[in-house]
Amino acid sequence: MAHPITPLSPPLKDELDIVIPTIRNLDFLEMWRPFLQPYHLIIVQDGDPTKVINVPDGFDYELYNRNDVNRVLGPKASCISFKDSACRCFGFLVSKKKYIFTIDDDCFVAKDPSGKEINALAQHIQNLLTPSTPLFFNTLYDPYREGADFVRGYPFSLREGVSTAISHGLWLNIPDYDAPTQLVKPRERNTSSHRYVDAVMTIPKGTLFPMCGMNLAFDRELIGPAMYFGLMGDGQPIGRYDDMWAGWCAKVICDHLNLGVKTGLPYIWHSKASNPFVNLKKEYKGIYWQEEIIPFFQSIVLSKECTTVQECYVELSKYVKEKLGSVDPYFQKLGDAMVTWIEAWEELNPPKEAAAAAEPKSVKKEEPSPKSK
Amino acid sequence: MAHPITPLSPPLKDELDIVIPTIRNLDFLEMWRPFLQPYHLIIVQDGDPTKVINVPDGFDYELYNRNDVNRVLGPKASCISFKDSACRCFGFLVSKKKYIFTIDDDCFVAKDPSGKEINALAQHIQNLLTPSTPLFFNTLYDPYREGADFVRGYPFSLREGVSTAISHGLWLNIPDYDAPTQLVKPRERNTSSHRYVDAVMTIPKGTLFPMCGMNLAFDRELIGPAMYFGLMGDGQPIGRYDDMWAGWCAKVICDHLNLGVKTGLPYIWHSKASNPFVNLKKEYKGIYWQEEIIPFFQSIVLSKECTTVQECYVELSKYVKEKLGSVDPYFQKLGDAMVTWIEAWEELNPPKEAAAAAEPKSVKKEEPSPKSK
Repeated sequence: MAHPITPLSPPLKDELDIVIPTIRNLDFLEMWRPFLQPYHLIIVQDGDPTKVINVPDGFDYELYNRNDVNRVLGPKASCISFKDSACRCFGFLVSKKKYIFTIDDDCFVAKDPSGKEINALAQHIQNLLTPSTPLFFNTLYDPYREGADFVRGYPFSLREGVSTAISHGLWLNIPDYDAPTQLVKPRERNTSSHRYVDAVMTIPKGTLFPMCGMNLAFDRELIGPAMYFGLMGDGQPIGRYDDMWAGWCAKVICDHLNLGVKTGLPYIWHSKASNPFVNLKKEYKGIYWQEEIIPFFQSIVLSKECTTVQECYVELSKYVKEKLGSVDPYFQKLGDAMVTWIEAWEELNPPKEAAAAAEPKSVKKEEPSPKSK
Repeated sequence: MAHPITPLSPPLKDELDIVIPTIRNLDFLEMWRPFLQPYHLIIVQDGDPTKVINVPDGFDYELYNRNDVNRVLGPKASCISFKDSACRCFGFLVSKKKYIFTIDDDCFVAKDPSGKEINALAQHIQNLLTPSTPLFFNTLYDPYREGADFVRGYPFSLREGVSTAISHGLWLNIPDYDAPTQLVKPRERNTSSHRYVDAVMTIPKGTLFPMCGMNLAFDRELIGPAMYFGLMGDGQPIGRYDDMWAGWCAKVICDHLNLGVKTGLPYIWHSKASNPFVNLKKEYKGIYWQEEIIPFFQSIVLSKECTTVQECYVELSKYVKEKLGSVDPYFQKLGDAMVTWIEAWEELNPPKEAAAAAEPKSVKKEEPSPKSK
């Protein structure tokens, strides 16, 4: 087939932001150029704000460092983690788009078993724009994929599915293991020749999963306020549980609001394992606390009055303080930070009607104004 | 690598029966010979008992026709369907083995994407002998597979998993669609070049799935009494819901007893689609009733007193009569048949201690005595 003379416009070009937390130059974007260059980037610079982060030419971006976070959020900046990739959720907060794709700077373009480069973002978009099926399991995987369907015995009333809020992608090469598993299996690799699973599936209602933030997309309008990555890193007793925390909160809220979460394709190539000894130090409290956190989330029943993500999230923050506060005082602080996050969200993302009504005044309001290009 | 001089003994050779319901000569076994010949077959002949079914030379089998079913079960034979592949569950009843693999006679050996023939039974055995993880989702699929593990954020206390009761295999070529989907998509095929999903996964607790009986294995000691395929076919208002019924009942009971259900690999090659017009006639009531059956099964809570599969199943039969009886009188009859099935199960499968105690007497008891080779 001949290439079309005018390339089709990249899907959702003006409705999606790519959020990247980083501490280094973004050379990794070179490999992503064919797929990501048309989109707007929001870069959240972690650590020392005086360090200059180079972004390859031709990318459209805004970059926020810690000083920007403090300036934009004022006292509410306390809810944004420092020296931890959890700071990425600041990008979710300041985005004005409907969709977010977030990716780590050590993730490269993977190849499918035929050797073709995988356009991860295109697959995430397809996942988000087709429904999910959390209420009943389809044994032939994603029924909305071309050439697939619902199998015999799948109730017809459930075949419309529900809106998809989250698309969780996977990783070839270095799997996302915890420190103990890294230590025990230092050489384990996930290669496309023997571990490429060509499937997208919905995580059923009522089931929690470990959400990894490395290669993740979501519908910001549907679930954005639940995508808070918690208090991690500098000054906190825990790290590497930022995405997990967001995943548990978001899944419980998706289940309550009848929204879908998908996992599977697309794969990215995860280039290098982080240091397992450093990871162990960050993780060990999480590994221990998790044994109480999971039953907590499994038992959560949100009240019927909670009909928005914000309402669900604030109610959840109360349960966190009430039920997990006894595990460690950290959870009191985290519960408070969850409320601060929602306040920040509502400040930066006023309801559309309210925003429209307030428009004449809004010119006075200080806008995020990052360094941008 | 050189072939070993003495081949290894096939796994579970003396602990597994292969159950095949059929109305024709079993020529399809020729292709399966390298994989299935070492095992014992239980053939349940459906329809006209005077018809002679040929079994390829060299297979060790016992064959039951309708006259045998009536002789073995007496009045309880009423619970075994006639002129429907649901009759396969009679084979589960008379087996004395711990494991069952059941396969349809239009299912052939499939090839993986590398062109290698798939030993479906070996994969089922691997699925059954490794644990399941119904309580938390592992995003990298089966954590017990070689080269795989639990991902970061998977609670350590859940990594032992639970015993696997059921292994549900899939199909290449003709997918298992219902009649309406067959009619709408007559040409849809599932080929290994674009739809081979290299994964086994646990169906999470609390989630129902459409269990297909074409390519299925289970641990008879763990879940056998729940594998009743209902009243279908001749004299019944419904067909093609036999395996679905068994799947819904078995899944609810597995969830209650903390047992696992896996789906995915192995694939078989499903050679031909059944007639969609005939299927529509068999299915239409099921398609309609299912809209009430699924919420019924989703709401079932078995009482804590039910600690065996038999107890669970009898309690379930009461709920079926109580809650589905109003949908159609058929469910009253089905509820009664479920109890008859359990009575037949207990008669033919007395508890081991009781069987041992009664051993001197048991020589008097009439044994199934089928035509065997």
